[in-house]
Amino acid sequence: MSIPDALAALSSFLGEGYSCSKSDLDVHGQSESYFPQTAPDAVLYPKSTDEVAGILRICAEHGCPVIGFGTGTSLEGQAMALSGGVSVDFSKMDQVLEIRPEDMIVRVQPGCTREALNVRLRDTGLFFPVDPGANASLGGMAATRASGTTAVRYGTMRDNVIALEVVLADGRVIRTGSAAPKTSAGYDLTGLFVGSEGTLGLMTELTLKLQGQPEAISAAVCGFETIGNAVDAVIETIQMGLPMARIEFLDTDSVKAVNAYSGLKIAECPQLLVEFHGSAKAVAEQSENFGEIIADHGGSGYEWATRAEDRSALWAARHNAYFAILASRPNTRAVVTDLCVPISQLAQAVEETRADIAASPLAGPILGHVGDGNFHAILLLEDGNVEELAVAKQLADRMAQRALRLGGTITGEHGVGVGKMPHMQAEHGDGWAIMADIKRALDPDNIMNPGKMVRLN
Amino acid sequence: MSIPDALAALSSFLGEGYSCSKSDLDVHGQSESYFPQTAPDAVLYPKSTDEVAGILRICAEHGCPVIGFGTGTSLEGQAMALSGGVSVDFSKMDQVLEIRPEDMIVRVQPGCTREALNVRLRDTGLFFPVDPGANASLGGMAATRASGTTAVRYGTMRDNVIALEVVLADGRVIRTGSAAPKTSAGYDLTGLFVGSEGTLGLMTELTLKLQGQPEAISAAVCGFETIGNAVDAVIETIQMGLPMARIEFLDTDSVKAVNAYSGLKIAECPQLLVEFHGSAKAVAEQSENFGEIIADHGGSGYEWATRAEDRSALWAARHNAYFAILASRPNTRAVVTDLCVPISQLAQAVEETRADIAASPLAGPILGHVGDGNFHAILLLEDGNVEELAVAKQLADRMAQRALRLGGTITGEHGVGVGKMPHMQAEHGDGWAIMADIKRALDPDNIMNPGKMVRLN
Repeated sequence: MSIPDALAALSSFLGEGYSCSKSDLDVHGQSESYFPQTAPDAVLYPKSTDEVAGILRICAEHGCPVIGFGTGTSLEGQAMALSGGVSVDFSKMDQVLEIRPEDMIVRVQPGCTREALNVRLRDTGLFFPVDPGANASLGGMAATRASGTTAVRYGTMRDNVIALEVVLADGRVIRTGSAAPKTSAGYDLTGLFVGSEGTLGLMTELTLKLQGQPEAISAAVCGFETIGNAVDAVIETIQMGLPMARIEFLDTDSVKAVNAYSGLKIAECPQLLVEFHGSAKAVAEQSENFGEIIADHGGSGYEWATRAEDRSALWAARHNAYFAILASRPNTRAVVTDLCVPISQLAQAVEETRADIAASPLAGPILGHVGDGNFHAILLLEDGNVEELAVAKQLADRMAQRALRLGGTITGEHGVGVGKMPHMQAEHGDGWAIMADIKRALDPDNIMNPGKMVRLN
Repeated sequence: MSIPDALAALSSFLGEGYSCSKSDLDVHGQSESYFPQTAPDAVLYPKSTDEVAGILRICAEHGCPVIGFGTGTSLEGQAMALSGGVSVDFSKMDQVLEIRPEDMIVRVQPGCTREALNVRLRDTGLFFPVDPGANASLGGMAATRASGTTAVRYGTMRDNVIALEVVLADGRVIRTGSAAPKTSAGYDLTGLFVGSEGTLGLMTELTLKLQGQPEAISAAVCGFETIGNAVDAVIETIQMGLPMARIEFLDTDSVKAVNAYSGLKIAECPQLLVEFHGSAKAVAEQSENFGEIIADHGGSGYEWATRAEDRSALWAARHNAYFAILASRPNTRAVVTDLCVPISQLAQAVEETRADIAASPLAGPILGHVGDGNFHAILLLEDGNVEELAVAKQLADRMAQRALRLGGTITGEHGVGVGKMPHMQAEHGDGWAIMADIKRALDPDNIMNPGKMVRLN
């Protein structure tokens, strides 16, 4: 194994698509949250599947680690070059390859971002629904099995990726899935690569499901006395079959930060942000039914924003909540963690987490995707303060343990990366060993994002 | 490797749960469609996960093949004991273990059938939506990634199984997934086992998503001049975002058979059967909108059955279509095959298939799940007539090739079994070799349903 030999061959193979400038290495060694700078030895900018296959052949020959890179917005250190090697940046493979309106699908390259895709789709009457907040690349979203505010209605990347082109660890190129809406022809390789965080191969093309733009959209904010009341209202709404497109929860601290940052005047109590999509009649009926449900649970201040600009302001505020919370304290970094539990356990999970954070010296607003049983804590710490970092990590560890105790999972949508590795054994038991067996079968020399996802020794 | 040694140990381990009576072997060697009788050496009736684990440990020690068995309704020979060994019949593991109404999930044993589950759910306001027609076991449905009439709204088994308990080839027991609605904690092992047809392990427990029983249901039959018109109406309906719960297609021959068998008087032309689920207002609005769409495409005879008994008669007739078609000719067996294409290609796929069958000496009505681009041909042949069987297989082979040429998949919901093995290389290319690598990693001695799904040499 020799990384220098690989670099020499890659430089010669890619020419201008090869970089080892300090700024490039720095950017690709950064993390969105609290992880230390961990730079690769070079950054590669392939322009085609053939170039990616060539990269993998060279790296396989020399045993050089390969880490896929989208927009660098992952939250658990997925892009860190723990053993050096090359970061494969897909920003030059960002095209929308084919829109098929009749089949309501689209083929894209992995570097295309979700916002760029939706701009391209604007005059088709279709849109791509998965919305993790960040304007992430679609390849990165698939690799981490992202979801976000709309998963309660439209599902996660697991549900919205129907086919892939993947370059394997030895440079072979395979296609998984097809343009057909379903299949029972063999193991679900598409589902295996989605969420594999670059440890089994690199995606070079994705086929995604699209949705029709709804005729009408209605959004609202609604305050509750307690988190339990808010969650009960959501459970009843789901059981009634009201098809919410979004249903988000913000705790009081999150609301305060959002108000200060975005100039809003939302009542400073636990809030639900909800959105309905459908025909004008259906949305009106759903809004009315939802109003009755929340009234039964003490909801107040319920007001519908049917004007597009009001809705945009509301969701922009929600999407900026992370930055709003960071801005609530100067010189701040954050341990951002997520968990997901059965919705019946959500109120307890939130309450316990809030009490745990309150008993610590840190601030940590809580917010999330209440319809999925999924929430985030944004644990704030002074940049460079190792004691605070240790406290934050302990809080995050207890959140993961709490999720498992309540029958849930250590991460609903942020993925494993480096941050959740310590909890994989507790969640999966011997299933984690099976994941390692699969990793060995597909990447016997462990060059694909090594050190993440599985334990091989 | 010694099957006799395994049988002796299994007989001693299971006592009454071990059978090698001729009738048991015959039943477990049968196929629902045209495959030859291929019996196991013994049939096992485990009563617990521990017993299944014990069975696998014994079979692993002696290299004895193990084939899972639900209700024997698979259509591609999935349960055939190609290399002998034991059939593990889950009929004594048929319990509903836990219903969690707040989380809208249920835990069941694999031998529980979908109808038995829905009877148990009747007074909860919830139901399990996946409906392949046969009253199959839920374990079998998961193993073959079944779907059926409601997949257009509620998805396939891929979408409705959220967690599993699986006994691996060496007897280890793992749990995949959790009761949380989503996860990004590692490779999607749940998705890997769903559709693996017993080649990677045996499921001993499933956690399934449930749906709220709709307040209102409306169903209708609607005739068209051509298949193309019917498909265009469906495409427009999907693009408009009308949430059909079911949308089924019957060709003229299928309608004739159904009328004769079920005493109905549906007009003998290409027909769509459609159903909407929702609130009374929403269903009324959707029905009205659908009526406008089909009128634009020359649909006629459109009439709503809102009474439960009328709807039941309609769907019973649809579910009995297979038997109706078999009954349309005496002393008949059938090659039942399915394919799935992007919906934009569906009319062409159906038309080409109909022309191919018409040019053959066989009758072969076509029907299917038009909202998914998925249809079946039921190719009728005289029992024991090898020439007709050869013709039917050639027609089925050309259907699989046609599906691939049109960008689809060789099977939408029947699975691979034995029947679709010859087409796996054409569909998956090197991806099929990757499936074999995964199989070797999880079942190194190839005891789990050997001879199916992958090619190991």
